Amino acid sequence: MSVEQSFLDYVKKIGAYQEALGVLYWDMRTGAPKKGIDQRSEVVGVLATDVFNLSTSDELKGLLDQMELELSSVDEVTKRVFEEVKKEYNLSKKIPADDYKKFVVLQSKSESVWEEAKDKNDWGMFQPYLTEMVETLKKFVEYWGVTDNNPYNVLLDQYEPGMTTEILDQVFSELRDKIVSLLKRISESPNQPTTDFLFHSFDKQKQEAFSLDILKQLGYDFDAGRLDETVHPFATGLNRGDVRITTKYDEFDFRSAIFGTIHECGHAIYEQNVAEELTGTPLAGGASMGIHESQSLFYENFVGRNPKFWEQNYKKLQSYSPEQFGNVLVEDFLRAINEVKPSLIRIEADELTYALHIMIRYEIEKGLFNGDLKVEDLPEIWNSKYEEYLGVRPSNNADGILQDVHWAGASFGYFPSYALGYIYASQFKAAMLKDIPQFDSLLEQGNLSPIKEWLTQNVHQYGALKKPLDILKAATGEGLNGNYLADYLEEKYTRIYKL
Amino acid sequence: MSVEQSFLDYVKKIGAYQEALGVLYWDMRTGAPKKGIDQRSEVVGVLATDVFNLSTSDELKGLLDQMELELSSVDEVTKRVFEEVKKEYNLSKKIPADDYKKFVVLQSKSESVWEEAKDKNDWGMFQPYLTEMVETLKKFVEYWGVTDNNPYNVLLDQYEPGMTTEILDQVFSELRDKIVSLLKRISESPNQPTTDFLFHSFDKQKQEAFSLDILKQLGYDFDAGRLDETVHPFATGLNRGDVRITTKYDEFDFRSAIFGTIHECGHAIYEQNVAEELTGTPLAGGASMGIHESQSLFYENFVGRNPKFWEQNYKKLQSYSPEQFGNVLVEDFLRAINEVKPSLIRIEADELTYALHIMIRYEIEKGLFNGDLKVEDLPEIWNSKYEEYLGVRPSNNADGILQDVHWAGASFGYFPSYALGYIYASQFKAAMLKDIPQFDSLLEQGNLSPIKEWLTQNVHQYGALKKPLDILKAATGEGLNGNYLADYLEEKYTRIYKL
Repeated sequence: MSVEQSFLDYVKKIGAYQEALGVLYWDMRTGAPKKGIDQRSEVVGVLATDVFNLSTSDELKGLLDQMELELSSVDEVTKRVFEEVKKEYNLSKKIPADDYKKFVVLQSKSESVWEEAKDKNDWGMFQPYLTEMVETLKKFVEYWGVTDNNPYNVLLDQYEPGMTTEILDQVFSELRDKIVSLLKRISESPNQPTTDFLFHSFDKQKQEAFSLDILKQLGYDFDAGRLDETVHPFATGLNRGDVRITTKYDEFDFRSAIFGTIHECGHAIYEQNVAEELTGTPLAGGASMGIHESQSLFYENFVGRNPKFWEQNYKKLQSYSPEQFGNVLVEDFLRAINEVKPSLIRIEADELTYALHIMIRYEIEKGLFNGDLKVEDLPEIWNSKYEEYLGVRPSNNADGILQDVHWAGASFGYFPSYALGYIYASQFKAAMLKDIPQFDSLLEQGNLSPIKEWLTQNVHQYGALKKPLDILKAATGEGLNGNYLADYLEEKYTRIYKL
Repeated sequence: MSVEQSFLDYVKKIGAYQEALGVLYWDMRTGAPKKGIDQRSEVVGVLATDVFNLSTSDELKGLLDQMELELSSVDEVTKRVFEEVKKEYNLSKKIPADDYKKFVVLQSKSESVWEEAKDKNDWGMFQPYLTEMVETLKKFVEYWGVTDNNPYNVLLDQYEPGMTTEILDQVFSELRDKIVSLLKRISESPNQPTTDFLFHSFDKQKQEAFSLDILKQLGYDFDAGRLDETVHPFATGLNRGDVRITTKYDEFDFRSAIFGTIHECGHAIYEQNVAEELTGTPLAGGASMGIHESQSLFYENFVGRNPKFWEQNYKKLQSYSPEQFGNVLVEDFLRAINEVKPSLIRIEADELTYALHIMIRYEIEKGLFNGDLKVEDLPEIWNSKYEEYLGVRPSNNADGILQDVHWAGASFGYFPSYALGYIYASQFKAAMLKDIPQFDSLLEQGNLSPIKEWLTQNVHQYGALKKPLDILKAATGEGLNGNYLADYLEEKYTRIYKL
């Protein structure tokens, strides 16, 4: 057998364990009986250990070394698979085993301390763990290798290959100024929407039926997926023929089901349409966190909150919950689902202010790794930034610096993906409009195929075959550019709030 | 680490892959999207190979050899785990690799030829494959080691440890004579039941609701299981905290859902109540095919077809399908669900004639391995036996010798378990009546806990810690005895058919 074939077989074996783990996780979240969970966790442990061992083995090292010599004669797919596998291998192997062991313990300890600290609103409890986590990651970054005296870029690159603070600083700061100014005008507008009808009772089974309707319309392939209910909605791509979605039905806030379903559908349509030749490789999961988020946000915001989308769907919505919406005009409905309301909590943020939550975290992370921010000063820094950007100030640390689990779990460099996804999506939308100027009327007709086709052609099919910024460049002719998002927000909220 | 601990860890690792495979199979049968199946099959292949490799490795051989020396100092559980693992190891390893490879090819070929032969009603197509399969298994039996000049006992023992032709010959022949004579009297009875109302429409969702009601009443633990729908119903014990049931809703024959659910519930309650200390070991799946079947048949026949069980449940059934049952007396309902009707097809057989189908297969299998039956003569032998025992003669081989897939798949020695389960169940019932003389009134009250407790105490908890005949002996004080089943059938059908 050729080296290339041995290498690909090896990689696909890792992929097989990961797919099995994916099914086990899905099952645990969607309906596995609770008494079986302890033993199931043992099973997960065995398979996860296989993945770790295979991903860090001497055998893999040997295959990577041999492949290195043959790279000139292999095709693009194999080459990219090689790069991805080697990157993951290095991430694990460059850390001395002892350091890694301590890190795993710290991570697990830190997450459980965070949970308690948040409950008790006790920053002092969590501070030493966060300090140690940052120190540990700084050491890891050294092991991984810092090339340009910018440790935070090493972390960014893990989630968004090719992304740097140089790019983000410029794009984020311009965008931030525009959003902050727009937010101020919105707050002062006398034309605030009425929203009370959003929170009336909406039968859960009817919400499910409506969600299924919408999924079909968006082009989600039910022969390659299914919809289930969970506490925390997610999409999981087991393979391109099996990309499952979950959602949550809140009787008194239908938005979580409908917009949650549309959001997860965007993630799922991405993975359902990755090129078949990438099946079983690490390229099948998408280009990056940011590109993935661009697809979910494209569907959630540019489709799902577009007035044209509701031209025909609002009548359906009314028929599913007639008492709730029977006397509400579609204009009032659209204003309500697009309400802007600065809040302290990221996961409850509206479309406009969400990016501000992300930028605050980005600035803090960058300061911790590249600047002179100290962990002990974070609560005050956090609160001041919230006051400055959003005009709201947390009265306690549970709603402030202790809000998210990410840092306790060592996820530094991950947050920017959320805002990047939004920026990418608006750039894709602008580029798409050149090819499909009739975008709005397609939504009006409920004919979304050309939109999905465009995304598949320009984004989905590549999986991680191309880097995020290469996908963006090829699809839009540009690098990261926040203006499209800014213009979209300006137009949208000027219209809705009659600014 | 001690040898014992290393051995148990190794065995539990095999169990972990098997549990993961169990989840994947369940998922594939209950709702995995069809486009993902090809890739999922690759994943199954990887895990199944792990199980095979771990079960036949030199490392396992080493552990077994070391354990052999320490057996006197380990507890009963470890000892039985050792025996089971060694048995499986020998089954695989005693066959030379070349022979085994040829066998796997033959098995797969033979199954697909059987399918076509059955479709085309072409015995000549299948005959050479069945001949080769029997010859191959005869050679395997030699490899495994025949101790008493009785090759068929070697096969029987694989499914029902400790069972022999000496026992079966005696018990089956007495029972057969009684059933055949009873069947004759029933056929001649003028009191045949009316059954047309069984086949009226019964809303599928109502069938599901009723199935769930019944499961709760039987003591199925929904925190350790769930009910789903499949084409072919089954129960699968992933671990004792996760034992799932599936059933099938046929709008025009509610019996398949209700009695199918009760049957699978019997299997599931067994594995939900195996002792916790057996978790993750090969002992957790039950003592044997026959003992497993005894639990499903106990619930299906001794509970589910007992008139007392319907005292209160019939009113519920009427409320779930009022047009169908509103004007049907419970007496007529009971006569209908207990109708006897000799037929050619085993899987459609009634409670009385089912055992005859099994005995015919047993006699043929034994003749092939221990006697002078030739494969070429089987169609005629099959047809004659059906005529003699059941009074019906197949007009073609598709409904006769080609009926079941088992032999094509090399499953010789497996069929007797079906009848054994029924005999065991009737013996358990008789023994239970001594401890719980109020059995019938418990059913009448819908209080099934004491019945489940008795079965757990006497059967479930042991898993495969004890051999089938030891479980039977401890619970009933006897060996295999067909008289209890014969007496039960005599009483039941005399009553129903007013003989």
